Amino acid sequence: MRKKIHNLCLGILLLAFCICLLTANLLEESQSDSQKPWQEYSEMEQAIWEDVKYFPVPEFTSDPTLTVSYENSWMAERTYGGKRGHEGTDIMAAKNERGLYPIVSMTDGVVTKKGWLEKGGYRIGIVSPNGVYFYYAHLDSYADIEVGDEVKAGDILGYMGDSGYGPEGTVGQFAVHLHLGIYIYPNGEETSVNPYWILRYIENRKVKCYTKM
Amino acid sequence: MRKKIHNLCLGILLLAFCICLLTANLLEESQSDSQKPWQEYSEMEQAIWEDVKYFPVPEFTSDPTLTVSYENSWMAERTYGGKRGHEGTDIMAAKNERGLYPIVSMTDGVVTKKGWLEKGGYRIGIVSPNGVYFYYAHLDSYADIEVGDEVKAGDILGYMGDSGYGPEGTVGQFAVHLHLGIYIYPNGEETSVNPYWILRYIENRKVKCYTKM
Repeated sequence: MRKKIHNLCLGILLLAFCICLLTANLLEESQSDSQKPWQEYSEMEQAIWEDVKYFPVPEFTSDPTLTVSYENSWMAERTYGGKRGHEGTDIMAAKNERGLYPIVSMTDGVVTKKGWLEKGGYRIGIVSPNGVYFYYAHLDSYADIEVGDEVKAGDILGYMGDSGYGPEGTVGQFAVHLHLGIYIYPNGEETSVNPYWILRYIENRKVKCYTKM
Repeated sequence: MRKKIHNLCLGILLLAFCICLLTANLLEESQSDSQKPWQEYSEMEQAIWEDVKYFPVPEFTSDPTLTVSYENSWMAERTYGGKRGHEGTDIMAAKNERGLYPIVSMTDGVVTKKGWLEKGGYRIGIVSPNGVYFYYAHLDSYADIEVGDEVKAGDILGYMGDSGYGPEGTVGQFAVHLHLGIYIYPNGEETSVNPYWILRYIENRKVKCYTKM
């Protein structure tokens, strides 16, 4: 009798095990059938293009020498604070002067972040209508905006600087530039997107700046 | 004695089961740590931007009325051959005339497909240096190219038409246009990418067409 019970238990356990494996497999398959693992990423990434309206640095019509330049430095190595890939694009000022170049919002959106970060210095974070996070770092100073404020594309956020890479107030650790980061949240996971092609795409759409904004 | 053996067997089985579950979990975690499920998609998608050099329809400097227009019809519904999403961008001719507008390759690459498809009509397929597949459909006629030929960006592939939606040679089922499809192969799986933003990005880079090419 005991032996029979033992055999029965063993049988049930094996059966349960098989059902578990089968269910797991089926679940996995139905998932990959209905939705590719990059579907949400691809949809969120598409939405960025709909949200961007302006290049983040205006054009100085009064002084055409005040240009900017940028390269595709996606995932180029950075060393401050440990080796890491460069998750963004640096827009360099032709004239290395703090507080000279205004920075404008590329999108409509809401200010969700303002303040110091060791790596980013004084930064502003904006969430666009499609839920994309735009990160503007190394600012010299802020415009009159606070967390929770709504902004329109082209609204001034602050001025380009060289803040960051140290405790609050650190400046001059690198040349004056805007670090632009763009982040999406597929499957709830923060993921950076290369801003370079997006910048190239809107390069000709600049707010015109006739005098100091 | 028998009972002991049975208990031992049961114990070993349970242990094996636990080890299996643990291993599966660990493998899964290490995978998601090192690589997000959309990593390959995102890398391949980035590569498209590096490969595209020209808008697929030249600019007619001799007749500026011969323009084209296109919209973001990504995944808009199509019904021919069963309901499906529109995996591409239609570039419509302002002048509805077969064989008038040349179609040029957007990228360097190799011709991998040429010939009739029920939905696509006469089409050319080009694989670009980064392994992206460019699909040019509904052509009226071909340039002097064959499968296996290398092409340079800006090389003429054929002429815009209205072929397709039927057996070989069918024309006139819709207005003259170029259907452009762009495909990448993350994890070996064919995936279409919205060409709209890429077209917008290179809209100002058109081959100049002084006379009929």
